[in-house]
Amino acid sequence: MLLEMISTGEEVLSGQIVDTNAAWFADCMMNHGIELNRRSTVGDRMDDLVGLFQERSLSADLILVNGGLGPTSDDLSAAAAAKACGVPLMEHQAWRSHLEEWFSKRGRTMAASNLKQCLLPQGAVLIDNPAGSAPGFRVKLNRAWLFFTPGVPVEFKQMVNEQFVSFMQQQFRQGLATHLCKLLTFGHGESSLADRIDTIPLPADITLGYRPSPPHVEIKIFARGAAAIASQDAYVKTLQTLLGDAVVSTHFPTLAETVHHLLLAKPASLALAESCTGGMLSSQLVDFPGSSAYLQHCVVSYADAAKISLLGVEASVLARHGAVSAETAIAMAQGARSKLDSDYALAITGIAGPDGGSTEKPVGTVAIALCDRQHSFVQVVQLSQRSRNLVRVMSCAVALDMLRRHLLGTQPLVSYPFLPARQSYREAHS
Amino acid sequence: MLLEMISTGEEVLSGQIVDTNAAWFADCMMNHGIELNRRSTVGDRMDDLVGLFQERSLSADLILVNGGLGPTSDDLSAAAAAKACGVPLMEHQAWRSHLEEWFSKRGRTMAASNLKQCLLPQGAVLIDNPAGSAPGFRVKLNRAWLFFTPGVPVEFKQMVNEQFVSFMQQQFRQGLATHLCKLLTFGHGESSLADRIDTIPLPADITLGYRPSPPHVEIKIFARGAAAIASQDAYVKTLQTLLGDAVVSTHFPTLAETVHHLLLAKPASLALAESCTGGMLSSQLVDFPGSSAYLQHCVVSYADAAKISLLGVEASVLARHGAVSAETAIAMAQGARSKLDSDYALAITGIAGPDGGSTEKPVGTVAIALCDRQHSFVQVVQLSQRSRNLVRVMSCAVALDMLRRHLLGTQPLVSYPFLPARQSYREAHS
Repeated sequence: MLLEMISTGEEVLSGQIVDTNAAWFADCMMNHGIELNRRSTVGDRMDDLVGLFQERSLSADLILVNGGLGPTSDDLSAAAAAKACGVPLMEHQAWRSHLEEWFSKRGRTMAASNLKQCLLPQGAVLIDNPAGSAPGFRVKLNRAWLFFTPGVPVEFKQMVNEQFVSFMQQQFRQGLATHLCKLLTFGHGESSLADRIDTIPLPADITLGYRPSPPHVEIKIFARGAAAIASQDAYVKTLQTLLGDAVVSTHFPTLAETVHHLLLAKPASLALAESCTGGMLSSQLVDFPGSSAYLQHCVVSYADAAKISLLGVEASVLARHGAVSAETAIAMAQGARSKLDSDYALAITGIAGPDGGSTEKPVGTVAIALCDRQHSFVQVVQLSQRSRNLVRVMSCAVALDMLRRHLLGTQPLVSYPFLPARQSYREAHS
Repeated sequence: MLLEMISTGEEVLSGQIVDTNAAWFADCMMNHGIELNRRSTVGDRMDDLVGLFQERSLSADLILVNGGLGPTSDDLSAAAAAKACGVPLMEHQAWRSHLEEWFSKRGRTMAASNLKQCLLPQGAVLIDNPAGSAPGFRVKLNRAWLFFTPGVPVEFKQMVNEQFVSFMQQQFRQGLATHLCKLLTFGHGESSLADRIDTIPLPADITLGYRPSPPHVEIKIFARGAAAIASQDAYVKTLQTLLGDAVVSTHFPTLAETVHHLLLAKPASLALAESCTGGMLSSQLVDFPGSSAYLQHCVVSYADAAKISLLGVEASVLARHGAVSAETAIAMAQGARSKLDSDYALAITGIAGPDGGSTEKPVGTVAIALCDRQHSFVQVVQLSQRSRNLVRVMSCAVALDMLRRHLLGTQPLVSYPFLPARQSYREAHS
């Protein structure tokens, strides 16, 4: 079965929007053991749409089309589908009644532009959209079924999960069984990981993929067929041994989610103090429902005055060592921890750039501290100066990894080949 | 001139990574007045790559190929290009010397896997990569030039800016002049905007696009040709009049960037207090270099105890009105403002879900306050319950828009059709 995707819309093609639906869809298909063969993206031009529908319908068996079902004048998918199939557009009476009822229930009048969403190619099968005003539909053209879905992510995902997947399974017998394992790594480059791994042979029908997505590099181990799936576990274990400290999770896609679950499981409370990361670390944890069980507070002490008045950092420490120093980071962590007597605290203070660096402390210099009730652990790392955002993202990841190691009972301070530490020590609280 | 893009890599096709390079490239081309005609995405399978290179080279004049130049076994672009052209791979001596020198200068040994990056199709023209180990290259096949670039974003962008753009301009005369204007809107749905705008006729050769990207909807006004560009300004002004309050910026792509520049221009200082947004608002502002000029601190008071001890919210206010209430939001804002006597403070407290809602205060209930030295402004809005992240994103946007309006000297509390306010008032400080 050849499955393809067509993403439509000037806003996707012209880069005004990042196509997260496409990434989500491919991932969803992989979870069902189906690999996507190709994705094509075109804008909102009638001839391009019609041409692409006709062209791809000659090669693929099933084509998921996304976008272009909205109420506005640049939404052309239904009209293009009709033209590609050589049929007229017809008003779908039942959907029109449904929409009018939906609006009147909410005391609103249906906008005239919504009427357009009731027009489908003659002979198309309507696909219900419980979450929005644009119905999906499917039409058969040449070799392929074209399955049209709305661009609004929440509507799109619901339609795929509730309608597309079962249609796909009904129409096509599933191919070879597949299984995907992932290893999340941190602190190593792609080629340094590859050099370690390539020392052992790849089992048959297993493929290796590397996904560098700062701050992590994810290693994907993809098995095709029963024999490969049976050998996958042992191979993954061997990789883990070869990679050692570099592997930070086998279950979760990010360090933040790993730490979230460790804190919930313990359970333990956490306080944060952030300077250059500006709330990014806190926000990464608050992304997960249930984080209120452990996260007590975060102080973004962006100004020196805030470090003093909100965290109790002594002015003399700032004067002697500077705002970006191991000493200040420790004082920030201890100040944050003591506010509500949290079990742990993390603090980050650094120079994210592009300005503010010096010869002694260039852009990318970041001090990161972890403390519990007895000890503080601190390191000053020199991060890549490529971008302000990257400095902040990597700083959060180092902090989370220190806490992760500590929660697992291992040494919080390790050396990452790609993140040289300029200074690194542990001290007992006085 | 027909320009296409080919994105390669299992990690892009399979949804393990979102293709931000593609979005960036199309946007970059548009800034040079060139429209992309199609983008195709395939995985790391040799036959698919070779087939796609050959197929697209029959239709396009210029094809930007991205990805697959890395050192690992799943990087196949150079080999596939050679196969598509029917030539062997050859080692590029100069690049090998360059790489060996690069590594030895840094006291590192070149990994064996980097040798692969010195192999190019016979006859290919090498494209320098000053930022990484993978060179770009270009080959002519059928009608098209295929221009190969690395997947690492920083390397990709530099190569496009410094090498691809000039090659494109040399090879092809540029088409019709184009110009893009944007209006950033907030608080209105796409069809409600369309209904207002569609009352006036669209000038010739101007196209309208809507980009819903929560929390905003951006309206793009695209002009093709000198006559259309000349009429664009007047048309955009008319749209602004029709849209009124809905337009929040004509210059910046987000509310956060708009507020960032307003605060710098005034200049004024800001303090933040966040609960359900968990540092997201602070982090959105810290994204911009120079934000330290106005952002003094942010307290993420996630626990009630933190609202009391860090922000001085009275326990009786929490007990009487609850943590999610207009009264608590005002107390948080005033507490945050007074810490360092900032000019302004914003506070957000709400129920992001999926749990924690009640009949009286369902998930999506968020109280948002703004205060200056004299007054507080507060509103309790009922946001869509679609996702935890969306509740947080919309809450930050409402807060930023209140501050934006206040900084511009207009009323901070307005009614957004898509964000009904349950309560909204202003009070003078006692």
